[in-house]
Amino acid sequence: MSSICELILRFMALLLTLAAAIIIGVNKQTKFVPVQLNPAFPPVEVAARAKWHYLSALVYSLVANITASSYAAISTLVVLATRNGEAGFAQVITIFDATIVGLLFSANGAALAVGIIGYKGNSHLQWNKVCNFFDSFCDRVAISIVLSLVASFAFIALVALAVLSLQKRFATRT
Amino acid sequence: MSSICELILRFMALLLTLAAAIIIGVNKQTKFVPVQLNPAFPPVEVAARAKWHYLSALVYSLVANITASSYAAISTLVVLATRNGEAGFAQVITIFDATIVGLLFSANGAALAVGIIGYKGNSHLQWNKVCNFFDSFCDRVAISIVLSLVASFAFIALVALAVLSLQKRFATRT
Repeated sequence: MSSICELILRFMALLLTLAAAIIIGVNKQTKFVPVQLNPAFPPVEVAARAKWHYLSALVYSLVANITASSYAAISTLVVLATRNGEAGFAQVITIFDATIVGLLFSANGAALAVGIIGYKGNSHLQWNKVCNFFDSFCDRVAISIVLSLVASFAFIALVALAVLSLQKRFATRT
Repeated sequence: MSSICELILRFMALLLTLAAAIIIGVNKQTKFVPVQLNPAFPPVEVAARAKWHYLSALVYSLVANITASSYAAISTLVVLATRNGEAGFAQVITIFDATIVGLLFSANGAALAVGIIGYKGNSHLQWNKVCNFFDSFCDRVAISIVLSLVASFAFIALVALAVLSLQKRFATRT
């Protein structure tokens, strides 16, 4: 039963982090701002672009989600292959799961912290909000953070499940 | 042996997160900027202040470090009190440890992401660097992040130690 739960959680984490990475990776928005260069002529439209690689927090978030997604895929295969084998594999996988918890939460913290400044700005530091302008760009970043956060909690649940079920695995072996 | 390692790691995490929280909590810097209001008079000195509660990422970081520090203190007592008792306590503590990994890493990710913008600025979003001005404030934030990051890895080590030693605990009981 717990091994079915584990596979569902791993597959869910795989899909969520993959979706989060894709959403960040393809995210860009171009807006045209009218600029009056000379009062005698009509204003010129200047393109303003928002891209994920303009912000190191989003670059880190993309890398972290791709890493977590690849790890979820590999660990699913390892779990399937060693289902009836050594409990030692389950221990190593659980330690890696805890490391991915750290990786994903740090990425989500970073993206969220920068996102909050993007939405609200910071008057003390004179960092202006940009999400009122790059609205759909920010919305997609927000969706990606939510998906990735759910995946982060799935990895915590995987650690919890393993800690609770290791008892059973060892009990049947000793 | 592993229980001594556990206590050392917990005590280390307690001290590091406490130090990180105190460094953020007392961190402030005031600088005086000369402003020329009237060319006929000498420039007036205007105070510019940097405080931890100006940035939501630092507020979150302070709360996360205080939470982790309090948890490290409580869990040390629980571990000492239940050392020879039920292995079930060790399981619950390990699940909480994994949750604290998530909390601390998200806080460090948030503080680091905002810190990087503070140090380097972001020309695409026209967010100017502020750490060339509030130098000692930023340096103290950086020290606090490093201490808290070491504590985060200590919590991952605690999860790893528990996952590896649960085998022994259950083996002696089944």
